[in-house]
Amino acid sequence: MEIAMDEARLAAFMEEEFPQVAGDFVIESVGEELIVRLKVGELHLRPGGTVSGPTMFALADVSVWLAILSRIGPVALAVTTGASIDFMRKPAAGRDLIARARLLKLGRVLAVGDVLIFSEGEAAPVARSSMTYSIPPKG
Amino acid sequence: MEIAMDEARLAAFMEEEFPQVAGDFVIESVGEELIVRLKVGELHLRPGGTVSGPTMFALADVSVWLAILSRIGPVALAVTTGASIDFMRKPAAGRDLIARARLLKLGRVLAVGDVLIFSEGEAAPVARSSMTYSIPPKG
Amino acid sequence: MEIAMDEARLAAFMEEEFPQVAGDFVIESVGEELIVRLKVGELHLRPGGTVSGPTMFALADVSVWLAILSRIGPVALAVTTGASIDFMRKPAAGRDLIARARLLKLGRVLAVGDVLIFSEGEAAPVARSSMTYSIPPKG
Amino acid sequence: MEIAMDEARLAAFMEEEFPQVAGDFVIESVGEELIVRLKVGELHLRPGGTVSGPTMFALADVSVWLAILSRIGPVALAVTTGASIDFMRKPAAGRDLIARARLLKLGRVLAVGDVLIFSEGEAAPVARSSMTYSIPPKG
Repeated sequence: MEIAMDEARLAAFMEEEFPQVAGDFVIESVGEELIVRLKVGELHLRPGGTVSGPTMFALADVSVWLAILSRIGPVALAVTTGASIDFMRKPAAGRDLIARARLLKLGRVLAVGDVLIFSEGEAAPVARSSMTYSIPPKG
Repeated sequence: MEIAMDEARLAAFMEEEFPQVAGDFVIESVGEELIVRLKVGELHLRPGGTVSGPTMFALADVSVWLAILSRIGPVALAVTTGASIDFMRKPAAGRDLIARARLLKLGRVLAVGDVLIFSEGEAAPVARSSMTYSIPPKG
Repeated sequence: MEIAMDEARLAAFMEEEFPQVAGDFVIESVGEELIVRLKVGELHLRPGGTVSGPTMFALADVSVWLAILSRIGPVALAVTTGASIDFMRKPAAGRDLIARARLLKLGRVLAVGDVLIFSEGEAAPVARSSMTYSIPPKG
Repeated sequence: MEIAMDEARLAAFMEEEFPQVAGDFVIESVGEELIVRLKVGELHLRPGGTVSGPTMFALADVSVWLAILSRIGPVALAVTTGASIDFMRKPAAGRDLIARARLLKLGRVLAVGDVLIFSEGEAAPVARSSMTYSIPPKG
């Protein structure tokens, strides 16, 4: 598949579409795999200092959304229709999270991607997720 | 099943455990079904004024967590191990979300619940979710 | 929602479409809930005499498919696009399984349903599942 | 992780535990990835000649089960507690299916794996699945 948007264009589009949260996410690389860093801050933490489940869900969600856009270009209206997530290990305290997303299907109306999430520097994933998106018809 | 914690005790425990977010959630009733209201605020919205996916995930997550605690008492360490969620309709703008959670299994080590989420006043659900929790062994 | 096909028409259509397996399933009732019985036979069992996971998956799948058809009529090409399932208890040996399915969304292109599966005569479900179907465009 | 059972020992154990279906599955290789072939037969097909959803579910299920056993040895009682699956493309008619499974977590009580399923010779997966297993305590 060809790349339709690179790191810089994706970052600019995310900033436009999701100004409240875009600052939390850094797109580290775009290719067969799309890699996103979550800059972990106070807001993302649970008592005990680990990242909350909904924050990991948000990271998985944005990573697959970016992976889709990297192929089809700036389509804000791609919406998540379904997701599954497994929380497998406690994230390491005080570390950023790194999401590695890949597209498994990019159809005319549906796209499917999956994601592994790691505490930076660790080999074993803290979570896995798969996400389904509905692609709006081209107008 | 017996009720181990009522609305007031659950609300106090949630406030203690999750002070950053507890103010967003109102426990409306506890019983066969546990009903939680999300007081929708700016922070929860996507452009266009609808509630974000991660916010709905957080609402589903907290609802099943509360349903478990309402049966087994104040066990902070019950942790989500897996979840699936389907986003089925766009939430109505400017309306609170209402989650209706039920427990399907409350085992010694695993609990499973499911949730329907509605825009207040609507009959058709905006999302469904199922959640699996790991219950810590009694010390 | 209106009922487009009743028990007898659904059973005849299932027999036409899935002759190899239709004999295993009995449509017990059609309405807000669609109820299907799996007549458990040797082929469905694991050692120890309990029904296998893939058999329960098949029961959930056929139940939501029938629930969709009961509303939209005989559309053979509705296909499952995604599913989640939780196996919560061991089915009772020597008992039929009863699936209770409901439709949560019936859109133009996607339908979502969920299912609880019981060993006949038991109050606690052995499994829960949610299923997403793609509806073919009307020709 | 060390390999506790190789292809031959896994095949023998599967034959013992699941004599009805073991003949359908060929363990092609065991390692970081465990690869299983489904020898597609009449019984697995839907009208139109494509493999049925429950058959793909069964293939995903057995693949992760074998991946777990390849690490921990012959523990028949590892049971599936949850699964999600996305059906992404129609399997090619008249071709075997190839499942590639990997373990993402192998804990004391829970294991998580995921699987991609391909029609033999195709680069794009027909399905993806994640599976959670409960590991019985060592007695």
